[in-house]
Amino acid sequence: MDLIAELSARLPRERLLTDVASRERYRHDAAAWTPSAAPAVVALPETLEEVVAVVEAAGATGTPIVPRGAGTGLAGGANSTEGCIVLSLERMREIGPVDAAERTVVVQAGVLNEDLRRHVAEHGLWYPPDPASRAISTIGGNIATNAGGICCVKYGVTTDYVLGLTVVTADAQVARIGRATAKGVTGYDLTSLIVGSEGTLAIVVDATVRLLPLGGREDRALTATFASLPAAGEAVEAIARAGVVPAALELIDRTCLQAVQAWQDLGIADDAAAMLLIHLDEPGETGEALAAEVEALLRGAGATGVELASSTEEADRLLLARRLAHPALERYGSVLSEDVCVPRSRVAEMLGRIEAIAREADLTIANIAHAGDGNLHPLIVAPAGDEAARARALVAVDRIAEEGRALGGTVTGEHGVGLLKLAGAAAELDPAELAMHAAIKHALDPRGLLNPGKAFPPVGT
Amino acid sequence: MDLIAELSARLPRERLLTDVASRERYRHDAAAWTPSAAPAVVALPETLEEVVAVVEAAGATGTPIVPRGAGTGLAGGANSTEGCIVLSLERMREIGPVDAAERTVVVQAGVLNEDLRRHVAEHGLWYPPDPASRAISTIGGNIATNAGGICCVKYGVTTDYVLGLTVVTADAQVARIGRATAKGVTGYDLTSLIVGSEGTLAIVVDATVRLLPLGGREDRALTATFASLPAAGEAVEAIARAGVVPAALELIDRTCLQAVQAWQDLGIADDAAAMLLIHLDEPGETGEALAAEVEALLRGAGATGVELASSTEEADRLLLARRLAHPALERYGSVLSEDVCVPRSRVAEMLGRIEAIAREADLTIANIAHAGDGNLHPLIVAPAGDEAARARALVAVDRIAEEGRALGGTVTGEHGVGLLKLAGAAAELDPAELAMHAAIKHALDPRGLLNPGKAFPPVGT
Repeated sequence: MDLIAELSARLPRERLLTDVASRERYRHDAAAWTPSAAPAVVALPETLEEVVAVVEAAGATGTPIVPRGAGTGLAGGANSTEGCIVLSLERMREIGPVDAAERTVVVQAGVLNEDLRRHVAEHGLWYPPDPASRAISTIGGNIATNAGGICCVKYGVTTDYVLGLTVVTADAQVARIGRATAKGVTGYDLTSLIVGSEGTLAIVVDATVRLLPLGGREDRALTATFASLPAAGEAVEAIARAGVVPAALELIDRTCLQAVQAWQDLGIADDAAAMLLIHLDEPGETGEALAAEVEALLRGAGATGVELASSTEEADRLLLARRLAHPALERYGSVLSEDVCVPRSRVAEMLGRIEAIAREADLTIANIAHAGDGNLHPLIVAPAGDEAARARALVAVDRIAEEGRALGGTVTGEHGVGLLKLAGAAAELDPAELAMHAAIKHALDPRGLLNPGKAFPPVGT
Repeated sequence: MDLIAELSARLPRERLLTDVASRERYRHDAAAWTPSAAPAVVALPETLEEVVAVVEAAGATGTPIVPRGAGTGLAGGANSTEGCIVLSLERMREIGPVDAAERTVVVQAGVLNEDLRRHVAEHGLWYPPDPASRAISTIGGNIATNAGGICCVKYGVTTDYVLGLTVVTADAQVARIGRATAKGVTGYDLTSLIVGSEGTLAIVVDATVRLLPLGGREDRALTATFASLPAAGEAVEAIARAGVVPAALELIDRTCLQAVQAWQDLGIADDAAAMLLIHLDEPGETGEALAAEVEALLRGAGATGVELASSTEEADRLLLARRLAHPALERYGSVLSEDVCVPRSRVAEMLGRIEAIAREADLTIANIAHAGDGNLHPLIVAPAGDEAARARALVAVDRIAEEGRALGGTVTGEHGVGLLKLAGAAAELDPAELAMHAAIKHALDPRGLLNPGKAFPPVGT
């Protein structure tokens, strides 16, 4: 039987999309610059059994499966390939009962991050991982990429909150891995192996996630501008060395600030080389004392225009420049959001190197950065329709990865390898480490049906 | 060539111990009740290259390797088998330069946990994982078992602090896996896969560990006694539901308290069914307010004799009963330290079931528990030389694991599977999950030379 027949034999017809428009709609994720092709079919299972059925049909016909959440990925990890099945988990949106004593909940892959946050907040609980896409990205996608976010400088990333998973393996078996308790070391930590593996080892259907108490925190925010990048870098390092761990420590560079200011007048000075945004969430006098300490550290590093907000609303206002950065740049063209992580003391140096790369490539590259953990997001702008600029942008991606590695960094801090970072990953991963990847992939997916070609480069590249 | 010749050809003679007394000394870890046999040779490499040399010699002769830290393991993970090489990392004791801005350090496997803590404290930094063995156990052993401890209820376990590893693979390749930056998602999370794998997938030579600032915390402790186990359980659950995350939340049961009181008069009431010890480390008025809240929760659950200490010294005094528990019980015989983790709301129920098991087995089973994360350590006492009691104790181990699983728990919270928990792990791991274990093990160690037979049960058991 052919693929559609195999699928139709196992699934209600309305779970399958085969029309051209639908197949085009599921062709790629938000990394539009990476290669893709329309899938043969889009499968939209609604139960664990239906996910198994899709994998069985794929196995029976030797068809690759590209698992997909909401398609907000920035590295092409959910890009479709010719003739494949796109398996979208978007209809699996159940959230199980919240266990308030254990602070855990079982959540299906298709639940939006924001929906989970809202749901557990009603129980006084908090799911910390906060990728910028959280309003539109799914927990399954967050797990596939081990998504980070703004608060991970203090609270960690997705993998730190996933205790256990229900997955469907390449041979269509259901495996319940990990644990439901606070601690547990029975067997290998397969959960952490699967998190961040971009759907190449198994298909995640649901997750048992750990939550934190929602209360006990108070919002304080500081912003500061700097006349030079090294001064901003000095402030980031001074905060780290002082042993302060902010709930967010973001940086916006000159190019970004100017784009924001040109769009909406926030009173940002023309000569500002960078702005730092610091969020503290300690309550009471502890929070006050920390805010005073951070203010002194900022001024010590040469900050001007330091502002302090002690309410959530005021803090939100201070963070406005950060939120406007991306849309402000999109006014100039198509924006490729890069993602590189360096030691936090090298942030300023890395920004300097990115400035040089932008000059070399004759491109606008603006930067927002989770400076507190050294994670930079260079935003590379290519004017609409300018294919030459787009080609230069892809060269810039590789150059940025190269400079990041030279500074002791990694080619992706939180977006994942997908297709976009395969070359960078090939340069970064040590040959023995890469051989371990290939061995594990072959062990769990011997026929190479699960999202082939993603997450790590072929051995010998 | 035979094994000793292969090793001698690659290593200085003084790295190899072949005399009977030495081989007996490295025969087993602290899980004396599990099977072991003297190794053919003990190898004590001092460099990465020498570790490679040992693995090459093992490969050339098809000899299994049992990696070993300080031999403080409680599940037999480092127990030697007939004819094997015990590869002890104890001489690899270097600590690299502390990066105070990045809050990381590279530490070799043989460094004692306490030595690492002391070293980084000089730089104002803190390595949180604090297994009870920390004065005598190595970081390599902590990594092999993914060791927990008292503070993990708030600060997490070993894997939460390991960013990257240098390992030697089964085919004697050096692989540098993971990252050195705060964030990073290039490739699979092999680091977390290796942590807790008990030396069965690769040999850990050094680790890049993440540190926290040492300062900013203040010690407060509370103790409270309860007239019944359910009342103590109610207090644990009330603290969790209130969203309080203590830095430690320990429980000592009646049997333990009576053993301590019989040995050293701490004024513990005869009718105390359990004592809770709570450590809070928030500073200033936040800490004060939390202590008052916890005190109210304890009293609300029926606690009597609530004591509060607001200095480190006084807090240490309150925790004395916890520290004396193990030695107090050893006065009655050989103590097997069990390790099971249940949802924290089931701690009291689990303790009740353990009481029943003790009666069935006609054994003394005392309990200390990291109650805050549901991790119980039943201490099973077998009088010296009483082989029948020892046999009943091993039955009790399986019964405890069974009851723990029945309550939604796991057979090992932090000690590892080793040899002791193979039966429990076989019952706990789902067949598809177990098949993934076997596939990964075969992929990374196809000849089965690395600590064979440990960490997970054979498929089909």
